[in-house]
Amino acid sequence: MDERYTIEKITKIWSTENKLSLWQKTELMAIKARVILGLVAETIFLKIEETLKRIPIDIPWWKNRDKEIRHDLNAFLDERLRHLTEELQRYLHEDMTSYDTEEPAFVCMLRESVQIVIRSLEEVCKTLKAMALKYRYTIMNARTHGQEAKLQSFGKRCLTWYVILQLDLNNLKNTVSSLKYAKLSGAAGNYGDMDPAVEIETLKQLGFEPLYGTPQILPRELFAPLAQALCQIVQSLDKIATDIRLGARSGRPILQEPFGKKQKGSSAMPHKKNTIRTEQMEGMARMARGYMNMILEAIKTWEERAIEQSCVERVAWPDLFHVVVHSLKTMNAVLTGLTVYPDNMLLEIADSCGTYASEEAKKLLREFLAERGLSSEVAYRIVQLAAFNALELSGGFQRLRDGIPSTIEEAEVALKEASSLDRPRRESIQDIIPLGHLRHSPQLEATEKEIEGWNVMLFTIFSSRRIRDRWNQIFRPSYQLRREPFLYEKILGK
Amino acid sequence: MDERYTIEKITKIWSTENKLSLWQKTELMAIKARVILGLVAETIFLKIEETLKRIPIDIPWWKNRDKEIRHDLNAFLDERLRHLTEELQRYLHEDMTSYDTEEPAFVCMLRESVQIVIRSLEEVCKTLKAMALKYRYTIMNARTHGQEAKLQSFGKRCLTWYVILQLDLNNLKNTVSSLKYAKLSGAAGNYGDMDPAVEIETLKQLGFEPLYGTPQILPRELFAPLAQALCQIVQSLDKIATDIRLGARSGRPILQEPFGKKQKGSSAMPHKKNTIRTEQMEGMARMARGYMNMILEAIKTWEERAIEQSCVERVAWPDLFHVVVHSLKTMNAVLTGLTVYPDNMLLEIADSCGTYASEEAKKLLREFLAERGLSSEVAYRIVQLAAFNALELSGGFQRLRDGIPSTIEEAEVALKEASSLDRPRRESIQDIIPLGHLRHSPQLEATEKEIEGWNVMLFTIFSSRRIRDRWNQIFRPSYQLRREPFLYEKILGK
Amino acid sequence: MDERYTIEKITKIWSTENKLSLWQKTELMAIKARVILGLVAETIFLKIEETLKRIPIDIPWWKNRDKEIRHDLNAFLDERLRHLTEELQRYLHEDMTSYDTEEPAFVCMLRESVQIVIRSLEEVCKTLKAMALKYRYTIMNARTHGQEAKLQSFGKRCLTWYVILQLDLNNLKNTVSSLKYAKLSGAAGNYGDMDPAVEIETLKQLGFEPLYGTPQILPRELFAPLAQALCQIVQSLDKIATDIRLGARSGRPILQEPFGKKQKGSSAMPHKKNTIRTEQMEGMARMARGYMNMILEAIKTWEERAIEQSCVERVAWPDLFHVVVHSLKTMNAVLTGLTVYPDNMLLEIADSCGTYASEEAKKLLREFLAERGLSSEVAYRIVQLAAFNALELSGGFQRLRDGIPSTIEEAEVALKEASSLDRPRRESIQDIIPLGHLRHSPQLEATEKEIEGWNVMLFTIFSSRRIRDRWNQIFRPSYQLRREPFLYEKILGK
Amino acid sequence: MDERYTIEKITKIWSTENKLSLWQKTELMAIKARVILGLVAETIFLKIEETLKRIPIDIPWWKNRDKEIRHDLNAFLDERLRHLTEELQRYLHEDMTSYDTEEPAFVCMLRESVQIVIRSLEEVCKTLKAMALKYRYTIMNARTHGQEAKLQSFGKRCLTWYVILQLDLNNLKNTVSSLKYAKLSGAAGNYGDMDPAVEIETLKQLGFEPLYGTPQILPRELFAPLAQALCQIVQSLDKIATDIRLGARSGRPILQEPFGKKQKGSSAMPHKKNTIRTEQMEGMARMARGYMNMILEAIKTWEERAIEQSCVERVAWPDLFHVVVHSLKTMNAVLTGLTVYPDNMLLEIADSCGTYASEEAKKLLREFLAERGLSSEVAYRIVQLAAFNALELSGGFQRLRDGIPSTIEEAEVALKEASSLDRPRRESIQDIIPLGHLRHSPQLEATEKEIEGWNVMLFTIFSSRRIRDRWNQIFRPSYQLRREPFLYEKILGK
Repeated sequence: MDERYTIEKITKIWSTENKLSLWQKTELMAIKARVILGLVAETIFLKIEETLKRIPIDIPWWKNRDKEIRHDLNAFLDERLRHLTEELQRYLHEDMTSYDTEEPAFVCMLRESVQIVIRSLEEVCKTLKAMALKYRYTIMNARTHGQEAKLQSFGKRCLTWYVILQLDLNNLKNTVSSLKYAKLSGAAGNYGDMDPAVEIETLKQLGFEPLYGTPQILPRELFAPLAQALCQIVQSLDKIATDIRLGARSGRPILQEPFGKKQKGSSAMPHKKNTIRTEQMEGMARMARGYMNMILEAIKTWEERAIEQSCVERVAWPDLFHVVVHSLKTMNAVLTGLTVYPDNMLLEIADSCGTYASEEAKKLLREFLAERGLSSEVAYRIVQLAAFNALELSGGFQRLRDGIPSTIEEAEVALKEASSLDRPRRESIQDIIPLGHLRHSPQLEATEKEIEGWNVMLFTIFSSRRIRDRWNQIFRPSYQLRREPFLYEKILGK
Repeated sequence: MDERYTIEKITKIWSTENKLSLWQKTELMAIKARVILGLVAETIFLKIEETLKRIPIDIPWWKNRDKEIRHDLNAFLDERLRHLTEELQRYLHEDMTSYDTEEPAFVCMLRESVQIVIRSLEEVCKTLKAMALKYRYTIMNARTHGQEAKLQSFGKRCLTWYVILQLDLNNLKNTVSSLKYAKLSGAAGNYGDMDPAVEIETLKQLGFEPLYGTPQILPRELFAPLAQALCQIVQSLDKIATDIRLGARSGRPILQEPFGKKQKGSSAMPHKKNTIRTEQMEGMARMARGYMNMILEAIKTWEERAIEQSCVERVAWPDLFHVVVHSLKTMNAVLTGLTVYPDNMLLEIADSCGTYASEEAKKLLREFLAERGLSSEVAYRIVQLAAFNALELSGGFQRLRDGIPSTIEEAEVALKEASSLDRPRRESIQDIIPLGHLRHSPQLEATEKEIEGWNVMLFTIFSSRRIRDRWNQIFRPSYQLRREPFLYEKILGK
Repeated sequence: MDERYTIEKITKIWSTENKLSLWQKTELMAIKARVILGLVAETIFLKIEETLKRIPIDIPWWKNRDKEIRHDLNAFLDERLRHLTEELQRYLHEDMTSYDTEEPAFVCMLRESVQIVIRSLEEVCKTLKAMALKYRYTIMNARTHGQEAKLQSFGKRCLTWYVILQLDLNNLKNTVSSLKYAKLSGAAGNYGDMDPAVEIETLKQLGFEPLYGTPQILPRELFAPLAQALCQIVQSLDKIATDIRLGARSGRPILQEPFGKKQKGSSAMPHKKNTIRTEQMEGMARMARGYMNMILEAIKTWEERAIEQSCVERVAWPDLFHVVVHSLKTMNAVLTGLTVYPDNMLLEIADSCGTYASEEAKKLLREFLAERGLSSEVAYRIVQLAAFNALELSGGFQRLRDGIPSTIEEAEVALKEASSLDRPRRESIQDIIPLGHLRHSPQLEATEKEIEGWNVMLFTIFSSRRIRDRWNQIFRPSYQLRREPFLYEKILGK
Repeated sequence: MDERYTIEKITKIWSTENKLSLWQKTELMAIKARVILGLVAETIFLKIEETLKRIPIDIPWWKNRDKEIRHDLNAFLDERLRHLTEELQRYLHEDMTSYDTEEPAFVCMLRESVQIVIRSLEEVCKTLKAMALKYRYTIMNARTHGQEAKLQSFGKRCLTWYVILQLDLNNLKNTVSSLKYAKLSGAAGNYGDMDPAVEIETLKQLGFEPLYGTPQILPRELFAPLAQALCQIVQSLDKIATDIRLGARSGRPILQEPFGKKQKGSSAMPHKKNTIRTEQMEGMARMARGYMNMILEAIKTWEERAIEQSCVERVAWPDLFHVVVHSLKTMNAVLTGLTVYPDNMLLEIADSCGTYASEEAKKLLREFLAERGLSSEVAYRIVQLAAFNALELSGGFQRLRDGIPSTIEEAEVALKEASSLDRPRRESIQDIIPLGHLRHSPQLEATEKEIEGWNVMLFTIFSSRRIRDRWNQIFRPSYQLRREPFLYEKILGK
């Protein structure tokens, strides 16, 4: 993993030093287990433990030996045996096969790494919780298909982000339950000379219980779901990051990634504030999927085992953990320093011409039309037409729209015009409909005549004060967001 | 999915007919919920229900409408509304967005499909359980790295296959817990005009509870682990299938796929009995991974939702289910009809020259050597040398090995020789070591002189009857497999 | 593949009918080859050909037979042999193994499918070429990292889309060259009784040449690059689709997907015009990757072959072709009907305060500053500060920005304010810098005092008319786009 | 990448040192280009070149600066500018955007890495070529579906391995042609202030030509096929490795991985010679696919570019190259040291009872039967029955097969029996058929009576000496392999 994306704690967990020290721990606990079971004298254990803990493992020696015999666990044993008297040597690795030592160590590394993930994930969840509360009344357009949909608070969006990470956390915790297992059941999983009681006791010392019925190694079915759960976290982060990128598009940004005082956006263009950290999240998501797939395939091995999984696990597990934790830390930094522009959220709503209430408008209209014997389809079409009308252009704007420049000079003239046009406020469907201001739109089927009839009818309907009040009510943010307190209550308990 | 791999029940679940009927069910339950909550008169509901259940959905009409308006749920509503009076129309889909209808239906389809998977998986587990018991004493060489390792029973191998499928089943059940959720919370997940009480009641009728805090659709974080769990099952089946293929290699097969009386192995070669069903499992595993990856990415969508996931889910979910269930059914057929050759398992053991006990031999030897002040490394080297000696060739065999033919005529002569050589029984390490029959091997470091010393020493050691008895004991199958009853007890309770 | 995404021509190519008819063609050509080589009398061939072409293959018969003997090619032969006299039977499939028949047929299906892809891809390229010319002077902000960068024409963007599809087309054509190979070299690829001359002649009749040295089947190394090339096309389409989605975000869209007159955007919200077809492209890209990965793994098979690849190829190849051609056709429809809003492109430029020229501004300023002994770093910082100043807010807008509402009532008041604020035209860096209007920004390091100095200096520098002219020049679109004609010339030859 | 799988040359190419030095080279060539075009005085270039080449880049300084400004290319420029006089500074990076510098450097790294891959791949091809020649007459059973099929030489198998690697090499070379492109066309690819003549000249100095029509970066469509080609190589190696593993299964291995004199196969079992290097190849293939997929997705970026690809490319490209080159080197070592057991190949053939000629036997028989008016189906069935008969058991062997032990004691007895049974030579179909020794098989449909008739007929047919000669001929290796010289000629020219 490139050092930019490396998490020091993860590096330590997966270091040679830590791995060998966990191997040693397993070997020692296997002897201790025999002491507990009355099979070996305690003094033996104490002597071995004292010696091995006192003399650090000579890593270069081990590496050389490994190159010679092409067996890392045997090389480790050779290194350790050097320091034991002939008499003590036989107690080390007694009745064990390599993977009886390696598997508990491996699962320990997974467990420690997962704890770091959980802590980092909880950190992001905490940040999102605080944001949900802070932006509880910061209103914005919800967007579906990139289009302005209904109103919501930015707090509600944070709440959704929080909820998906909670789902990921639950998923992760589900898969972690498999990490309670390890094995000491020999080269074919049917023990050979190993006493099952020694397995139980050794694993107990290490915080495990046996999985019965394994081949030489723990079946990788135990770990594949964990890789998926880790990968999924980064996919969710990428989803959140994408929402931020979409909000941060210049023009009228509603969100912005933190940007350092000395930061440079571009070597060429001094005005740039690029969303580089949220963009990176997409790369991280791609990497996480790659590593997950490498790991998933480890399930397949020949018969009682072959070693296809070993090289993959050396690389993909630590790199996947780096990617996950780096992504979580980056996301936490982005969220913590996120700039929110409530003004632009409001201006966006103001410019959306009341369309955020089109659903309620349609419903209310349907009620009024039903009294006149008209179908709900008509209500849909009136609101659709009003929405299209509201966004139609007038005067200079329409001219700009109609003219595709055919020379660069024409383009320059058009830009000058665009720069000098006054930006009018647009009419809202909140007004168009009650006033009967519907106009024909070339984009829709309704005929002039039909529309004429609608306008007359609408004017009549809305002459009632009561109806106008009900109508205006639905456009109020307090109405639009009236169920959000319920969501806060359900999700955050407040 | 090609019809060869299609499961009829899965096809039905994911059919247009079933989907639309589930949409209708959701719509009806949303009205019924309002009846229960006292918001709508029961007669309204009964009239709508009677009408919609009486008049089947006109699928071709729906398809045409969908093409016109490019919105399948709206097209469905249009089809249904045709049959309702103006007065009843407003109750259908009231305050709902498309995915309020589609999501419960979608999760229903997942739930029904998963049940089929679970049943098929349990069937295979049952078969494996029976096999584990049947072959409890059918001894064979365990193989690690493709090499003969220790003795085990074929029942023990079935037990391991059973255990990995149990892990898959548990994993699947873990992920299924997410299928309890659905949503009816409107276009942005903050309800709009939908009353949360109606959501709760509707979902209750359908056997769901609400997930609070969704955007327009259920977050796909809920379903990605399910795709992984399904995919993982096929990976495990491929592992089992590979073990069978490895056992079925001609020459001295220990296993054989069922082969029909009229089956043809090859259009060219009449003698062939090909392992085509277990080989197919590898293809299925590749497909399952492809579909899983398609689904996993559905987590990423823009803001309150976009429709990237829709086409993928239409294709990948049913096809993934077809692949999983077809694979399970195929595997069950293969296992049920599997031919086991105990004779070849025994001949393989007989020919392996006692090496299956090399671990115990090394241990016992270490004990004897320790009394003579020799290190355990020496025990390792003696057993390794004996094993290499046992497998060395003599006479004509060695000549055949040494001669790479340099013409086709030489090859023909060699084949004739090979065909006429008597196959001698090989010496076993069980005999070589006690008799001090070690010989120099060019593959190992030990010098002639060193070996000479070892032979003398071994002969002396094994002159003791007690030692010879202990030695012979470790080569007995009953000794080698003495812990298997413990495994049967732990895993199958017997 | 779901029928929505199915291409009829692809379905036909991969149909059972077509496959069996290609098998028959191969079988016939193998006999014809022998006629040409003088090994078989022509009358034999003509009789067989006449019979087999006259009597259509009985598909249901074939399917039943296949189920019985579990060998589709043998079942096909059995079906055909029924219609031949005993005497003619021996000429059919003579000296051939199944895959001698199947491989040429398979490669034919690939070749036919690829032709459809190429035609569809060329169609999209043609559309993009026309768009590049049409929008040659339709100016817009280029965007990097979602941020407005430099000016470009929309035609230039179409040109880039065109270029990436040309790269894909070249890549595809590179991989297609492997489709010239087939084989008729028997069950182990070393011919058995097959005469290599018959192989050459048969393949020549079918438009192939032999690949020498195959095992039983053509090595899948031949086809994996094709799957990649197909997959890559959809990735590029997804990139283009994403650009359209980004341009179509409501608020001030610059692009819009075609929207039918009767189309409905949403069942709930009548105002919606959703980008459903470009969003679907992302789903298609995910599917294409899934299928590509399934196919890629077919490279791995055991020894002279096993049948892992067969089920995958039955499913993944046709489905991949459906996905690619459907995506190309969809994209062509989207591009052909794409609505372009030149007005909004211009308004976006106008609102970007001249920052599009920040690079040139920095360069020019550097030149002026260098004469005063100032470093280029200062030029960068001045332009950066001017850009930040230009985008700063004033009055009511700043108040809106500063206030995160703490109640829903405050939110309602803020929305009312936002709706009533007049939208001022912003100052451009084109003016800020020459006028010395730089102000302190809390986002940047420059101190008040430093800025004061800069303002004085800038005012002095720009008092020169010549300098002002050069300065204003760089902000002109004709200047910004002055190299685009060169690109058009190089890429389109005009 | 774990250091075990790291290739030093690849590490160097992708090191920070090399990257920054390539950035510097690009920057210098951009100035030199201007000298050539007469835009800048040569002395300027020489001064800059001298300074920058003299003063090494201060990597720690650069790293600190990068952390501060979060822009690695700008940090590099800052580091370099420190050493230039104010007057020279403006010539560095003039009119360029970051990726104008980075892209040529990046493609250089790809090119250098690819050269190493090509050399390593050619090395393996050379080894395989030598093996094909060495084992030209070393006969063995070809295997399809793991079953013994026809005869071939081991040289022919090496030839097939050679051919698939040649396909990979051609594929790689196809994709390498894209590495001739780079770009210097500014932040939006439409040049800004950059003069296209400077781009051409700069790239010429670096050995590139421009790709016209790019956005800010080179479209990743250029590189995705390269990633596929690299990945594909490892898939092919895994295929070869799997064939070796299948040949190396103990019992009667025909191949064996090199095994060092000091190597240890297992910590528990001294007799083991594990195929650890070929097994690792499967892990490598899984990793290669993971990295390829990460890279493939880089095609998708927003508009004129975003930075999703950067982190992936930093990690996945070097790691993919490590994986590919490590795999090639490992495979070369395995092949170079591969032990081939011609004796076991011969014994396998001898034990396969002449079934290797079943295709020719069927054909010849068909001819004889045709003269008696019998269909070719009968020939197929006779040969199939003979093959099944040949492999049937007798006496003690059949008893062993029939008895699934129901206690461990029974198992022990059976093992003792198996160990003491004399291994008879089996009858071959070469004899069974001419002698009319067909027997009923419960596995096939033929009735006793039918078989009786066949036996009589066969005996009659084969009473002819001429027929017996033709029959015996087809079982000769020289007949079976008679087309192999043709293949050697076509592929190796000898």
